[in-house]
Amino acid sequence: MKKTFLLAAATLFSAYVQAASDSLTIHRISDDIMLNGTCYNSLRTLCKTIGHRISGSPQAAKAVIWGQKAMEDAGADRVWLQAVDVPKWVRGKESLKLPLGPNNSFISVPMLSLGNSEGTKGKVLKADIIMVNNFDEFKNLTEAEVQGKIVFFNYRFRQDWVNTFAGYGDAVKYRWASPSIAAAKSAAGVIIRSISTGADDVPHTGSMHYSDTTKKIPEVAIGNQTADKLEEACHSRKEVTAVLQSECHMDGTAPSYNVIGEIKGSEHPEEIVVFGGHLDSWDVGEGAHDDGAGCVQSIEVIRTLKALGIHPKRTIRAVLFMNEENGTRGGAAYADSALKNKEKTILALETDAGGFSPRGFGTEGMKPNQKMKIQGYAPLFLPYGIYDFSKDEGGADISFLGKQGVPMMGLLPDPQRYFDYHHTNADVFEQVNHRELKLGAVAMTSMVYLISEYGL
Amino acid sequence: MKKTFLLAAATLFSAYVQAASDSLTIHRISDDIMLNGTCYNSLRTLCKTIGHRISGSPQAAKAVIWGQKAMEDAGADRVWLQAVDVPKWVRGKESLKLPLGPNNSFISVPMLSLGNSEGTKGKVLKADIIMVNNFDEFKNLTEAEVQGKIVFFNYRFRQDWVNTFAGYGDAVKYRWASPSIAAAKSAAGVIIRSISTGADDVPHTGSMHYSDTTKKIPEVAIGNQTADKLEEACHSRKEVTAVLQSECHMDGTAPSYNVIGEIKGSEHPEEIVVFGGHLDSWDVGEGAHDDGAGCVQSIEVIRTLKALGIHPKRTIRAVLFMNEENGTRGGAAYADSALKNKEKTILALETDAGGFSPRGFGTEGMKPNQKMKIQGYAPLFLPYGIYDFSKDEGGADISFLGKQGVPMMGLLPDPQRYFDYHHTNADVFEQVNHRELKLGAVAMTSMVYLISEYGL
Repeated sequence: MKKTFLLAAATLFSAYVQAASDSLTIHRISDDIMLNGTCYNSLRTLCKTIGHRISGSPQAAKAVIWGQKAMEDAGADRVWLQAVDVPKWVRGKESLKLPLGPNNSFISVPMLSLGNSEGTKGKVLKADIIMVNNFDEFKNLTEAEVQGKIVFFNYRFRQDWVNTFAGYGDAVKYRWASPSIAAAKSAAGVIIRSISTGADDVPHTGSMHYSDTTKKIPEVAIGNQTADKLEEACHSRKEVTAVLQSECHMDGTAPSYNVIGEIKGSEHPEEIVVFGGHLDSWDVGEGAHDDGAGCVQSIEVIRTLKALGIHPKRTIRAVLFMNEENGTRGGAAYADSALKNKEKTILALETDAGGFSPRGFGTEGMKPNQKMKIQGYAPLFLPYGIYDFSKDEGGADISFLGKQGVPMMGLLPDPQRYFDYHHTNADVFEQVNHRELKLGAVAMTSMVYLISEYGL
Repeated sequence: MKKTFLLAAATLFSAYVQAASDSLTIHRISDDIMLNGTCYNSLRTLCKTIGHRISGSPQAAKAVIWGQKAMEDAGADRVWLQAVDVPKWVRGKESLKLPLGPNNSFISVPMLSLGNSEGTKGKVLKADIIMVNNFDEFKNLTEAEVQGKIVFFNYRFRQDWVNTFAGYGDAVKYRWASPSIAAAKSAAGVIIRSISTGADDVPHTGSMHYSDTTKKIPEVAIGNQTADKLEEACHSRKEVTAVLQSECHMDGTAPSYNVIGEIKGSEHPEEIVVFGGHLDSWDVGEGAHDDGAGCVQSIEVIRTLKALGIHPKRTIRAVLFMNEENGTRGGAAYADSALKNKEKTILALETDAGGFSPRGFGTEGMKPNQKMKIQGYAPLFLPYGIYDFSKDEGGADISFLGKQGVPMMGLLPDPQRYFDYHHTNADVFEQVNHRELKLGAVAMTSMVYLISEYGL
């Protein structure tokens, strides 16, 4: 009895000492990043000297070189490029004119073709608009009603939902699937209300998809304010016409790279903790929140551990994935390579939800005991405003590792502003706050440290 | 035994039903504000048609009229103005020239005189600068070293501290007390590094104070980037001179008002829940986060309860306090009136920390059982990202009620960005996110509802 008690007390004491030590390590990580972190200046360089960087573009190629150098400067033991062929989509010129000017005159409105879509080959497409609020309303239309028209899918982002990522998941099907659904009834094109929380007129691009069986008709997005006006016009007028002209098209594939940097584990080098964001962006704005933030935070993990002389027990590997936006070929190539090389990836952690104040970590594909282990770390993160370990969330790039059975995690920043900027010309460096970005890096570094120290 | 069990079960069941019902009510509050809330547009009006509004200014007078109308539009049962005399401080013209140009030439730098300070009466004050990093360093200087000089207090905001309000509390004494401390050794003036988290060159104003026994010397703030350059110059050069010219001065008092709107309680009208923000701002920017946000959120509480047909059991009263920034005369006048009228204020809740995502509520001056009751509500707020009920925090305006023994609370938004904008020309409407602002209103409305429903 006495022995058992002493043993229990010793175990408890040791757990207490460990937690106290981890708490101090995380404190050191936080202090170093908040005072000496380079992620904010690094993001400025990426955004202001390279800018947006869609897969296959010259800017994406420059970003690869930038990433490689940044990993080296951070002090990674080894930095390498992993070849990956990426689809190339080219926007070209585009315009949408709607009769929303004085006396219903036609005016050019802010618009963006959706990524991967085909345009009008530069020709003028003039057609009447038919508006529906959702797919159910569209189902009730006959082919005769739709034929030759431009369908306006006027679905609204659920602003009443507190978690904007749930709202995005709900609304994004209109971006993804509308053209094929409309083409099945012989529509000539599609306009969607942007997948946007913005109280503004900023159009949002993002990837779409054609089914194999339907015609590839153009799809463009308009901002919320233009959508409101178009909605009003569709309600109040007998006929509303649109004039669309666009050149966007797929242009084969191009060679590109994932950028990888690692620190070899001191005790279990064969066990690998993978973490990262994606290096490509859409061809608008500067890809600051999506996902320059995730890239510079991942590089900061390496810099911080090196700067503090913390040698991880397991190998930690930062990956800047290429082509998350319109193909996820980088994520697929990384997972293929890991399988081929029989690597033992113990966890994959993605940061691709913006450089906002971190509020939690999602988990996905974990065994209950693994999830419990992660959730057991929650008290260590509370002083940094990180409290939510309840959500089921991994990431698009790491989902290919997930399919191989690798447990996944995703950094969860405050989600309120992300879908104001996501995939737009407004996603620029100025919209990223230095302290919020750095706190995200603190979260990433601390979690990578814990997993590398204790495994999963 | 069986009876006791049944009684306990019935009590538990009733508590469960109550919590479920509160959860639904808060859900309704959230949905209504996120979809129909007027606080964001209301803030736009305040910021863009009135702008900054220092106590005693024509803009502050306009803001009173705006607030009165906004309370009426929100549906308050009764709206009234409460007279309060406020100190009037006038900035006038001001400039600071430092030898930070090419070949050490003098250039005008971004600067702001501190609120309530006296300037140079429009005359040129040219004097050598002596730099210290903190009060301890200043203590080691002799009067001969300081006499006739401008003291540069180069104290840095603690960027390593995660809670910026702690950092503010730590640094603000340099703004508040430096002139009197420097004047005691016959300094001619004071320059401070702004009390700022900004990675920029924006100067921050804010109130300062003269002791009764020392000369009233001028105090000005410079942005972090200019402060870095000045620091470098003071380190590397034998002599660094400043040229200051300013007209700021106190200009007596002026009549003004608190704006008050209430809904009478249906069951305990004599018990009053007071909540609010402050209507005045500094004479720069638009006072958007500080504290236009708190004003429109408080008005939103009234609008929402009325719109949803929720009749509070206790009287709820929104107060837009005047003169928080440089005198807190509005808060004092309100508390005086409450005492004189023998009002029974059961709680005072302030929102004056910016229109950012809400993360918690602070409590102050509460009995343990009251604090436990408030903390018991925490699970109801978790779905809205509000998790922190641990901090000791009330508010400046309600502190006068606190001195009378009234329990206090403060809304705690995410604190990372606040001190980038606080008291600056950058505190404008564009820096407020509509969803973050509205979520703060959801938090306020829900807490006011719970207190009005169950008392304290």
